[in-house]
Amino acid sequence: MSQHQQAQDVVEEYLSRRTALVATDRAFRRDNERLASLTVKERAAEAVVRKIRAAEAISVWDGEHDDIHNTFPGMEFLTAKNVIDKTQLFKIISKMPKGALLHAHLDATVDKKYLWGLALQYPQLHVRAATVITAANRSTTLPEFRPLPLTSSTHDGSFTAAGYVGDTWLPLHQARDAFDPALGGPDGFDKWVLDSMIINPAEAYGTHNTITKIWQKFLSTFKATTGLFYFRPIFKAYVHQFLLESIDDGISYMEPRINFIHKYMYGADGEQNVPHRQWLQDFDDVVKDIKADLKSEGRENEFVGAKIIYTTVRVISADELEWYTEDCITLKQEFPHLIAGFDIVGDENVAKPLEDYIVPLLAFKRRVEDLGLELPLILHAGETLTDGGMADNNLYDALLMGTRRIGHGFSIVKHPKLMEICREQNIALEVCPISNEILRLTSSMPMHPLPIMLNQGIPVALSSDDPSVFGAMGLSYDFFQVIVASEVSGLITLATMARDSLEFSTLDADEKERAIALWERRWYEFVDEVASLA
Amino acid sequence: MSQHQQAQDVVEEYLSRRTALVATDRAFRRDNERLASLTVKERAAEAVVRKIRAAEAISVWDGEHDDIHNTFPGMEFLTAKNVIDKTQLFKIISKMPKGALLHAHLDATVDKKYLWGLALQYPQLHVRAATVITAANRSTTLPEFRPLPLTSSTHDGSFTAAGYVGDTWLPLHQARDAFDPALGGPDGFDKWVLDSMIINPAEAYGTHNTITKIWQKFLSTFKATTGLFYFRPIFKAYVHQFLLESIDDGISYMEPRINFIHKYMYGADGEQNVPHRQWLQDFDDVVKDIKADLKSEGRENEFVGAKIIYTTVRVISADELEWYTEDCITLKQEFPHLIAGFDIVGDENVAKPLEDYIVPLLAFKRRVEDLGLELPLILHAGETLTDGGMADNNLYDALLMGTRRIGHGFSIVKHPKLMEICREQNIALEVCPISNEILRLTSSMPMHPLPIMLNQGIPVALSSDDPSVFGAMGLSYDFFQVIVASEVSGLITLATMARDSLEFSTLDADEKERAIALWERRWYEFVDEVASLA
Repeated sequence: MSQHQQAQDVVEEYLSRRTALVATDRAFRRDNERLASLTVKERAAEAVVRKIRAAEAISVWDGEHDDIHNTFPGMEFLTAKNVIDKTQLFKIISKMPKGALLHAHLDATVDKKYLWGLALQYPQLHVRAATVITAANRSTTLPEFRPLPLTSSTHDGSFTAAGYVGDTWLPLHQARDAFDPALGGPDGFDKWVLDSMIINPAEAYGTHNTITKIWQKFLSTFKATTGLFYFRPIFKAYVHQFLLESIDDGISYMEPRINFIHKYMYGADGEQNVPHRQWLQDFDDVVKDIKADLKSEGRENEFVGAKIIYTTVRVISADELEWYTEDCITLKQEFPHLIAGFDIVGDENVAKPLEDYIVPLLAFKRRVEDLGLELPLILHAGETLTDGGMADNNLYDALLMGTRRIGHGFSIVKHPKLMEICREQNIALEVCPISNEILRLTSSMPMHPLPIMLNQGIPVALSSDDPSVFGAMGLSYDFFQVIVASEVSGLITLATMARDSLEFSTLDADEKERAIALWERRWYEFVDEVASLA
Repeated sequence: MSQHQQAQDVVEEYLSRRTALVATDRAFRRDNERLASLTVKERAAEAVVRKIRAAEAISVWDGEHDDIHNTFPGMEFLTAKNVIDKTQLFKIISKMPKGALLHAHLDATVDKKYLWGLALQYPQLHVRAATVITAANRSTTLPEFRPLPLTSSTHDGSFTAAGYVGDTWLPLHQARDAFDPALGGPDGFDKWVLDSMIINPAEAYGTHNTITKIWQKFLSTFKATTGLFYFRPIFKAYVHQFLLESIDDGISYMEPRINFIHKYMYGADGEQNVPHRQWLQDFDDVVKDIKADLKSEGRENEFVGAKIIYTTVRVISADELEWYTEDCITLKQEFPHLIAGFDIVGDENVAKPLEDYIVPLLAFKRRVEDLGLELPLILHAGETLTDGGMADNNLYDALLMGTRRIGHGFSIVKHPKLMEICREQNIALEVCPISNEILRLTSSMPMHPLPIMLNQGIPVALSSDDPSVFGAMGLSYDFFQVIVASEVSGLITLATMARDSLEFSTLDADEKERAIALWERRWYEFVDEVASLA
């Protein structure tokens, strides 16, 4: 054997060890199974997407845009949104069947302009502010809304007139019409309201660029929305719009979280008198209406249903939590097909840790078991950058309490044993890429720990969290940000996550089988379309 | 048993499972051993540091400072440096014995003002720029330096006069004296030079805030430095200052990387005629001088020595690499105690991947083995945010080629199998927190993957990489940024990493034993001092 031949053998032996090492390193990945048995069309579609991604990495992202410097694939969403919209990759991803949406707070899902359009239809709605609105304070002084009985006397007045007494409720239309023309008049009023409900790039990446500050801004957006959302006529229209928008984005099943901290919603009569069971009845009615509408359009296969994750907020005491768990159980008994699970939400970095709720949550689990209910905990945990802080430690409690999935689980990548548990016990993470970035857990997608989760073999359902606050409607933007920022993950990886979102939903076995079969059918239609671009 | 008692038992059982789970999750951590047998003083010192850290998280970091908004522990170093300097935590960390410095590029280690002071002492030095310097272009037009033989004719002139012909070499002092008073005269000249050698906050966090752009700025700082560094009189003084500064920061052993891409250094005669073996001889002489000086001061226990990691650059061809590996072997044979290993450096995201050098690197390993030399590869790999890009994939090759340690290894956290290999085969990571942050691999320390590496049980040696470019002299700032951003890691974790830096150095067994014994002695002295603050 010549010396040259010997050297070549050494290299070949090296390369075969290299191939084996890469495969071993990626052995846990859940997209392996699909990748091992690709159809010809799937192979072609995957190649098309990778080719477009590579081309746009240079043609779109490797340069400067008007008013956007420092562009790169997976960069800050709020800055990049207009650029993303124009990419071919986004146009493709938009059409993909997404499976289930497993993590979204219902009151932050519908486009704020649509919500505002709804609000303007109801003369019951009133608005107030803490003080007279001026050019100087309008970005920091928030509107609050509530319905008032139409019979109640209301004040005339304007937020922008010196005589306004802080916190006085004004009829919405009257306040809007009287808004100072120097501040834009009614249009200025609309802008003031809409700005209060969303996060803009300057806030996320400038003035509020710490987790604590952006959470303050984030929570403030709910202050304006809440009085509109918890008004029964709007609630029903809101749910309707949420489901339709989601379906149009290729989502066929949803498990939104609804916050039940308020014990009553406002009714059309302006009184706070609508109990929780009515919320569920309304939700159920809307789901049925949409199913009927879709059926009449021959689109019934696009939507298999929706359930609700009952949530309350991590500010209450352990004793108070018992009221909510009992309420949730009562609702589950009346609407077994509607209640998916139970959660407690809030900024984990400042809210009470799960550890504070051990007693009522363990009691809840026993009660649920005794009653033979299918009512799992589906807990937020680890939505944090801390290393061993209380939010990070929530992961231990969520898993010990038997959470069905983990909301976010962002910091789980620090925990070898907890990742192993999720992998072996099939506990999926509800990962919200754009939310994580705007709430400053990661500065961009290339810094996001999702590749770690995938390589550790943890099931992942990509989720949108609060799409209307982020201006990232549907799931397409989240899917896009994931695929654009990796060279390992591709279209098949997204497919695996989409399918897993159904697999790890709380649909019962029959429903799940049907939902997955329908998804697979749409997936192959989508693949045909993408492959044809080759 | 009462119901209350039963409930209490359930909670106690839960809490004991929780304690066990946390312990299992952290079972790989290398600080466990030390934590399991703390002295009373160590326990007290750990408590002191945690208390100060918690207090300063509020008193220092949880607010606004003059000109610094958005403060938080572990925030961007360049913005925070002046605040860090004033903290009690930093004052404590500064005094800690750091062990070894295993990852630093020698030409980016010594304070630039000191270097500039040296440069001004040598009339051989000349300077040029690509064009006339104006207020508008001075931040983007870089000075270059080189010695010229004193006998050679040199031009008069000024960079700031219209007559300057781009790229003409001017005597340093003359160019400095003639610098336009409108641009600050000689002081303005000094500022122009120094600014060209460092990265400022506006560059890192504003104009150059992508990895590609900040690397361009980063590499440009070497353009100005290089003509000074590779000038033998300065080189010797530079090495001397590097060792002294490091020793003063509590570092007792160093393995700096020296770039041997230039085959000759400039001599005092202004000719480019100083071969590699002379560089090593000079390095050796300086080490001996310092040992003698320290001994005369009774400080000989503060310094056990220094070796060099021979590096060339990942732009050369595989064929060219063979020249350098042979050169390294020749030097190792002449200076066995001085050469620690071999590496090839550069921005992994754009430079050639290790895969391109398989043939010469495998040949090098065979040669080294045949010759019976102790000359390991100590390769940069994974200094990237890509997921499966060539820089990320370098990790596979570094490990397959049997790298002794990994330079950076930032992206290894994505790779379950590679982390297992490092843990089981004791392959340490040279982790450079501040470098990673300024080069935009992470936006802040809370986003840094170090906690993942530690929880996976991978040995870590904290390193400074290019401290003089970052204005982060010594290792204290890196140690500080690590401890301030965690609630799991504490002083004992830093101790573990400091000790590991010696453990995973290339010191031979006897030297290592002595170095560790000396470190332990200084550690306990330090612990006494910190404990006394309680």
